Amino acid sequence: MRNTFGNIFTLTSFGESHGEAIGGVIDGMPAGVKISLEKVQAELDRRRPGQSTIVTARRESDTVHILSGMLDGVTTGTPIGFYIANENQRSADYGNIADAFRPSHADFTYSSKYGFRDARGGGRSSARETAARVVAGAFARQALATVGIDLYAYTSQVGDIALDKDYRKYDKSLIESNDMRCPDAYVAARMQQLILKVKGEGDTVGGIITGVVTGVPVGLGEPVFSKLHAQLGAAMLGINAVKGFEYGLGFDFASRRGSEVNDDFTSRNGKISTVTNNSGGIQGGISNGEDIYFRVAFKPVATLLRDVTTVNSKGEPVVLHARGRHDACVLPRAVPVVEAMAAMVILDAYLLDKTVHF
Amino acid sequence: MRNTFGNIFTLTSFGESHGEAIGGVIDGMPAGVKISLEKVQAELDRRRPGQSTIVTARRESDTVHILSGMLDGVTTGTPIGFYIANENQRSADYGNIADAFRPSHADFTYSSKYGFRDARGGGRSSARETAARVVAGAFARQALATVGIDLYAYTSQVGDIALDKDYRKYDKSLIESNDMRCPDAYVAARMQQLILKVKGEGDTVGGIITGVVTGVPVGLGEPVFSKLHAQLGAAMLGINAVKGFEYGLGFDFASRRGSEVNDDFTSRNGKISTVTNNSGGIQGGISNGEDIYFRVAFKPVATLLRDVTTVNSKGEPVVLHARGRHDACVLPRAVPVVEAMAAMVILDAYLLDKTVHF
Amino acid sequence: MRNTFGNIFTLTSFGESHGEAIGGVIDGMPAGVKISLEKVQAELDRRRPGQSTIVTARRESDTVHILSGMLDGVTTGTPIGFYIANENQRSADYGNIADAFRPSHADFTYSSKYGFRDARGGGRSSARETAARVVAGAFARQALATVGIDLYAYTSQVGDIALDKDYRKYDKSLIESNDMRCPDAYVAARMQQLILKVKGEGDTVGGIITGVVTGVPVGLGEPVFSKLHAQLGAAMLGINAVKGFEYGLGFDFASRRGSEVNDDFTSRNGKISTVTNNSGGIQGGISNGEDIYFRVAFKPVATLLRDVTTVNSKGEPVVLHARGRHDACVLPRAVPVVEAMAAMVILDAYLLDKTVHF
Amino acid sequence: MRNTFGNIFTLTSFGESHGEAIGGVIDGMPAGVKISLEKVQAELDRRRPGQSTIVTARRESDTVHILSGMLDGVTTGTPIGFYIANENQRSADYGNIADAFRPSHADFTYSSKYGFRDARGGGRSSARETAARVVAGAFARQALATVGIDLYAYTSQVGDIALDKDYRKYDKSLIESNDMRCPDAYVAARMQQLILKVKGEGDTVGGIITGVVTGVPVGLGEPVFSKLHAQLGAAMLGINAVKGFEYGLGFDFASRRGSEVNDDFTSRNGKISTVTNNSGGIQGGISNGEDIYFRVAFKPVATLLRDVTTVNSKGEPVVLHARGRHDACVLPRAVPVVEAMAAMVILDAYLLDKTVHF
Repeated sequence: MRNTFGNIFTLTSFGESHGEAIGGVIDGMPAGVKISLEKVQAELDRRRPGQSTIVTARRESDTVHILSGMLDGVTTGTPIGFYIANENQRSADYGNIADAFRPSHADFTYSSKYGFRDARGGGRSSARETAARVVAGAFARQALATVGIDLYAYTSQVGDIALDKDYRKYDKSLIESNDMRCPDAYVAARMQQLILKVKGEGDTVGGIITGVVTGVPVGLGEPVFSKLHAQLGAAMLGINAVKGFEYGLGFDFASRRGSEVNDDFTSRNGKISTVTNNSGGIQGGISNGEDIYFRVAFKPVATLLRDVTTVNSKGEPVVLHARGRHDACVLPRAVPVVEAMAAMVILDAYLLDKTVHF
Repeated sequence: MRNTFGNIFTLTSFGESHGEAIGGVIDGMPAGVKISLEKVQAELDRRRPGQSTIVTARRESDTVHILSGMLDGVTTGTPIGFYIANENQRSADYGNIADAFRPSHADFTYSSKYGFRDARGGGRSSARETAARVVAGAFARQALATVGIDLYAYTSQVGDIALDKDYRKYDKSLIESNDMRCPDAYVAARMQQLILKVKGEGDTVGGIITGVVTGVPVGLGEPVFSKLHAQLGAAMLGINAVKGFEYGLGFDFASRRGSEVNDDFTSRNGKISTVTNNSGGIQGGISNGEDIYFRVAFKPVATLLRDVTTVNSKGEPVVLHARGRHDACVLPRAVPVVEAMAAMVILDAYLLDKTVHF
Repeated sequence: MRNTFGNIFTLTSFGESHGEAIGGVIDGMPAGVKISLEKVQAELDRRRPGQSTIVTARRESDTVHILSGMLDGVTTGTPIGFYIANENQRSADYGNIADAFRPSHADFTYSSKYGFRDARGGGRSSARETAARVVAGAFARQALATVGIDLYAYTSQVGDIALDKDYRKYDKSLIESNDMRCPDAYVAARMQQLILKVKGEGDTVGGIITGVVTGVPVGLGEPVFSKLHAQLGAAMLGINAVKGFEYGLGFDFASRRGSEVNDDFTSRNGKISTVTNNSGGIQGGISNGEDIYFRVAFKPVATLLRDVTTVNSKGEPVVLHARGRHDACVLPRAVPVVEAMAAMVILDAYLLDKTVHF
Repeated sequence: MRNTFGNIFTLTSFGESHGEAIGGVIDGMPAGVKISLEKVQAELDRRRPGQSTIVTARRESDTVHILSGMLDGVTTGTPIGFYIANENQRSADYGNIADAFRPSHADFTYSSKYGFRDARGGGRSSARETAARVVAGAFARQALATVGIDLYAYTSQVGDIALDKDYRKYDKSLIESNDMRCPDAYVAARMQQLILKVKGEGDTVGGIITGVVTGVPVGLGEPVFSKLHAQLGAAMLGINAVKGFEYGLGFDFASRRGSEVNDDFTSRNGKISTVTNNSGGIQGGISNGEDIYFRVAFKPVATLLRDVTTVNSKGEPVVLHARGRHDACVLPRAVPVVEAMAAMVILDAYLLDKTVHF
């Protein structure tokens, strides 16, 4: 329950930011699925530091080593153990913080909980842990692809610069055409300018990622606690720096009337579907066959490249000044993490649904 | 995993809207906690239909029967079985819908998943199921009270009528002073007027509930998948009609700079705390000792008291006209459900945290 | 994990021996299975006290009330809540033991763990709790029957009187023809004589139950921790008074050579099977299509109808003298419990196996 | 649930016999426990092939690599990822079996379940997987030692050569004094002679391992499904080649009277204990403070170094002749595995018990 995610398809992850390696065990992966390890590595590369001018300059090759669970490029149904070496465990950048609590980081809560402080970095709270999720998600999405389920995510807001909320206005094939992973080149350029400006000021900025899942059959998810969107929400809120989750019209529903937003049913070519999709593809916690779409809010990165005042573990005031390799905006690198978590949730629900009928 | 919520403190619920009874089993309740069953029933009464003019006129006494797990008013550490009889299983109100899919209800997804249709009501998708959660939550909050943890929720928005987002501006003792469960009497009156107007038009309206947890010690929650807010989010998104969850500044973080919103640490009377609390009492997934606060978005009730066009299971167009006993706005009755889910999450995290140290 | 059994098909049980009711929630029951509630009740009746001269004279009707999860005699895929009222909560029989620890009962461990003593009976340690398992097992076995899986158990030893270990020598249709639930009438009569003799002396006696599952397809169970026999063993060892479990040749394997006991494969009518079945139908933790058979050892009932010396909670010596309604041998009534637990394990493994292939 | 063992303290293992590595993730290890990695490796060395003349000559160094969860020799409370490289993946020894099902191995069931055959070895069914358990168990037992809980196991029977069942007659300090891990040097020598004889005949032989846990406080375990002995039993039955489990008097209880075997309570120095310990330290599923002892039955190794007749995947008869590196008796190497599984169960129960009181 602590470091395991999922019910049937599960990822158990391990590893600290500055230890020897991070990694995990994928369990419940169906047998007989052909897996391209190149695609797995490609997903990792999308998350990797040092890809472009707008992300941290820290360079890690982040090569995944698969230790088990595959035979001749096909899954065997047994657990897939893997690790990614930590190549770049410099701890000098935070030389003066060994004993200080960085504002809005997990230092204080983490050291209070576990009773010690790892001066070398953020421990399990480091976003580096999400690399393990990207690996597991890459397996899940390749399984989903074989049954026609596809998913993608993109940066839809950075600071005040935002795309329209309607994902259907954008062409997903353009997402990877710019460093922002934003499907509108013009808006992407403005986002990028903002980030460079903010970075120049030693500051950081938040944003929103939109996720979309297509081709989901009717019937995935559970009607009560494990509603499909509750699982998606838990998955997204489990990503570092995420502070909000909504699906369908989300918070906009609050100010709307039922008569405006209800999704009427219709029949097209013998298939029942909805005229509109304000529900976001899930009704009563169960997928209805329409596109699932959701939005995930990220806070600004907590590390500022300027003087900040805080306290050390004795409660004494200290001034911190971080240096070097930090993202001013985490959004572009978080896109593959959002996709990975969504893929795991959908595959898990798909497998569990197989047990409803005898 | 399907109808069980929680890890150490768990609720396994059962029951359909129109069956003989709903209920559940609470497991992992610590031994030796004094429980007032009057308080348990009082929480149920807050959720019950027929309380006031603004909620459904359907009257059910909703009396909880505790079958086990208590001795002389104290918990025994063994599972607490309970049920609430369904007294009022009229199905006539939906006479013409036996075979039709009500728009934005779970009828279509539910019957597709399970392969049948219970013409008597919404099955497990009925909000009636949440009564079981209120019972379990009432046990959890009485346990939490013994260690100084308190929690409350209130209606903070109905349609366009909204309180300020800052919960500290409101006096929680006023929440129960009006039918809206809104701590500002003037705003409550406007909300109520809106609901009556909307109801008169056979329409419905959405809203937002704010939740607050105080007195939480530092250290609850896990750093990776089971972040405390991820568990809270999953709990809230598992409530019927919920479409969004945010904590701390939530979606507002997206447009903010790190320098504006970081919570600096300070030391007060030898205790480390934060100067501001934009984080919402949770950092890195672990409670930091500040107040936890969050917002939950509800869509408008799907049942409209007017003609709606939909299809039946054969895909043929039909016109539905619901009658009678329906909420035009679910918010006031959902307040105790939000509190119950939060109480279960916090108690569960509290108990799990006890196993971190040997 | 505490009061929940199973992974996909689960039973969460509740209830003390002397509380208002016992019961449970069955979750993960597949949708669309036709269930005879008469058969469910019939299984309960086999476990019930007061059936014959050799079991306790305590009379309880043990009628199960199903509260949810069924529609028109068919399962709906939603949780099945149920309870059985405790009609006969006399506590007078143990008048003088309120504060004493009965030898080889759970009184001492239970009260030490939970910090209190329920003077009215054995709490959750009472064998009465197994009635909930019989209900869940009766649902499971009806599901299994639809795919050709059958199971039965019988009393194979009482004291020194034992059947041959080879279950194939006995006709299962004779099991219910005598009060011992032993398929050999002559041996049954001797067992019954022994029990009456032992009972007359205020003493009790142990025994062994043999269980058999037929029609299991190849492939159920997991290769590592959740080996099919490990799950069966845990299920059986979770029954009150059970002290040992073996399957196939079991402990007899210890003194045998591989060349004597290996099960060679052969091909019959295009189907691969084994020439012998010393393995007991499971190899490497996974069913191989042969009959699964196992043996379960029960200790003698701890309650003696004679003076016994023990201590009270202060550690002071006291003499106890139990009276009245106790089994001198628990075996015949435990037969349906063994069957129920086996049915739950096999159905759970059957459902989980469906998720191995995509 | 598939490749994860435990509830609070868990091991998730991965790896095939002939893949790149085996390993696992230990989760729920309490923070702040000092760990000697030398002791971890020493346990692994006890399980390793090639230790002596009576075990397989296959030589593997079996060095464990810890990747996370430790800081300066102390556990951090975060998951401990580890792996052990597979150095010796020869597959030639079974050259002619690529397509044949070895009698009493898992080949047939495993390949039927997963739909493929790994010609390089036994996949997850290989006993090599137990090395991961030994690592996790070595962490657990070091934690247990800090609270005074100790455990050990020994070979108590090989073929017909058996120790007395009463573990108290033997000196545990002698267990490691011979290759058999048997605390009686004379009996050990006879066991060893038997194994060499059996081995010379290309045959194999079964046996029994006895396990003992001392210093367990009163109160560990759960009264219903998760009885402490049910968890121990599941743990032991999950070890390769195990066919039976009993604790206390075990199967001998079947032929005994209650008056002979009940454990009367007494008071010694203000502490309540039992006069005898036929129960094996567990009553009603909960530890009673006395020594826990149990016996585990192993079947003979299935691989015979002689001609055996079987079928291939087409059902055609084939003759197999295994060569080379195989144990004729698995018992001595299984002793540390039994200890490891017991340590995990006891620590898990210890941690869960902490949540019973608030």
